[in-house]
Amino acid sequence: MSENRTEISQLGEFGLIEHLTNTNETVQASTLLSVGDDAAVIDHFGKQTVITTDMLLEEVHFDLTYTPLKHLGYKAVAVNLSDLCAMNATPTHITMSIGISNRFSVEALDEFYAGVYAACEAYQVDLIGGDTCTSKKGFTISVTAIGEVSPDTFVTRSGAHPNDLICVSGDLGAAYVGLQLLEREKKIFLENPKIQPDLQNKKYVIGRILKPEPRTDVIEWLQEKQITPTAMIDVSDGLSSDLLHICQKSQVGCHLYEAKIPIHEETREVAYQFNIDPTLCALSGGEDYELLFTISQKDYDAIKDYSQISVIGYVTDIDKGTKLETKGGNMHDLIAQGWNAFRK
Amino acid sequence: MSENRTEISQLGEFGLIEHLTNTNETVQASTLLSVGDDAAVIDHFGKQTVITTDMLLEEVHFDLTYTPLKHLGYKAVAVNLSDLCAMNATPTHITMSIGISNRFSVEALDEFYAGVYAACEAYQVDLIGGDTCTSKKGFTISVTAIGEVSPDTFVTRSGAHPNDLICVSGDLGAAYVGLQLLEREKKIFLENPKIQPDLQNKKYVIGRILKPEPRTDVIEWLQEKQITPTAMIDVSDGLSSDLLHICQKSQVGCHLYEAKIPIHEETREVAYQFNIDPTLCALSGGEDYELLFTISQKDYDAIKDYSQISVIGYVTDIDKGTKLETKGGNMHDLIAQGWNAFRK
Repeated sequence: MSENRTEISQLGEFGLIEHLTNTNETVQASTLLSVGDDAAVIDHFGKQTVITTDMLLEEVHFDLTYTPLKHLGYKAVAVNLSDLCAMNATPTHITMSIGISNRFSVEALDEFYAGVYAACEAYQVDLIGGDTCTSKKGFTISVTAIGEVSPDTFVTRSGAHPNDLICVSGDLGAAYVGLQLLEREKKIFLENPKIQPDLQNKKYVIGRILKPEPRTDVIEWLQEKQITPTAMIDVSDGLSSDLLHICQKSQVGCHLYEAKIPIHEETREVAYQFNIDPTLCALSGGEDYELLFTISQKDYDAIKDYSQISVIGYVTDIDKGTKLETKGGNMHDLIAQGWNAFRK
Repeated sequence: MSENRTEISQLGEFGLIEHLTNTNETVQASTLLSVGDDAAVIDHFGKQTVITTDMLLEEVHFDLTYTPLKHLGYKAVAVNLSDLCAMNATPTHITMSIGISNRFSVEALDEFYAGVYAACEAYQVDLIGGDTCTSKKGFTISVTAIGEVSPDTFVTRSGAHPNDLICVSGDLGAAYVGLQLLEREKKIFLENPKIQPDLQNKKYVIGRILKPEPRTDVIEWLQEKQITPTAMIDVSDGLSSDLLHICQKSQVGCHLYEAKIPIHEETREVAYQFNIDPTLCALSGGEDYELLFTISQKDYDAIKDYSQISVIGYVTDIDKGTKLETKGGNMHDLIAQGWNAFRK
């Protein structure tokens, strides 16, 4: 926390916008006009534009007790860029709107924007507009992200065909167990503020919940290898729920192998501490922001040695249903329970 | 108010989104993919894209005591389209995100979306995405609007030159007096709920605050006449404040004639009832969503007989300052006080 506290009212609306955006530099050649006017202007050079938007509300989507504001700014951008990746698009621009109560100082907002700008820099995205207003209570964030694809190479959720392979990037379930750790530490802290949290050896899972990274690297790799997924989504609600979205939209079934689901060693360790099945964390945990996609079998050779992608099953006819084959060889129906799965 | 009340929880998140968007039809040829996936996709056909975003918070930007939800939905779209008009762009697409508490029923949201769709239809704009989430308290709205311009015909706030003419569309100050009426009726209602408001003969000013219309007609007219304003802004904060934005960004001064400011007869009438100077309502009231712009003198002949546009002054060198010439011939400095002007 900063020692100085400048009230937002000291700067006023226009002063605050100027303060928050005066270091904003654009890097995209397509940015013709950025913040500071009624709207921004972008050029296209024969590309198609992909647009997504997300709202994040305090106490619903984030808890400032354990979410540093800088991480929150980073994450608000990252989750939107992840939606663009899920369309096979390359992120180029964002707009950022915030509603903030006077509980927050200018220094606190600077922290938040430091995270926003860090994400913009990491992913070479231009912040081109937004709105800054005072709220009665709490912190509200709304981000719109804009990306580009070569004409008609965008990928929806509805193109999966029987016999396609089901792939996922990175590993799953870590964000969920990371959140369990943070919630536990919050509880301990509220009961005894003198106890300092010891999360040093849990950096991976904590990082996964606080600082998710959109998989632009995977999108670039696929484009380089000239592989266009037949369907794609990002894993925000959990593998079950998101795979079922693809199956429903594509009118297909699936056969998923529990043994193939990629789970990080630290995720397993923490899951066992909490007495939860790591597979359940992957299936129902969500917030991993990995890419879940289907590819034609002909692309298997190109993909099989890439460490960032796991093949976890295959697409079936719709009348075969949506199935999970356990490590023990049993077959279960895949159900979309999301976070409900953890409710006793 | 509807007699039926369906709880939002009965539909669930995905059910609610489906419910709110299943009647959504797109009309823009550029809409390649609309709601229902991770993002939307739009094509460009050699145009440049203009993007703006606005957040509206309950109790800050609107009061549901006297704002019907349908009007609120319409207005949330309209004010964003107005920002596109202020860039000389034609609106084409919007995304709509809302955060809502369980105080609102599905029927209430239907009312809100009826207004959203009415605005989309009136202005031939496609709703292509959004986010729907539950808030702890209150109603939060965030809209992003997308429009198009022919390459390099967008108009910023910074292109005004000395001797340009200052023009404004429609009339000013009505929204402010309309709001005063609504606030008065709210107070009367809160003191005695049996008294029904009598606003029948004040339809114009009430309509101006509850249902603003972006001036796409003026933009089309200007394009038809091949007039490109040198600078433009929409009047959201009041004529003073918004003209000063143009002067500051363009590094010029201005000479404004009080006698030329267009004010509706009903606005004058209501202003006198409230014992406020109608000119002050126009200068500092805001929320009129008219277009304020500057044009080269050579365009005067084309514009002078168009009933929707008034020439209200001219641009001067920056060292002449920003001046208002009163009806009595006195000169005042134009100051940006916005709503502060009305504080006693």
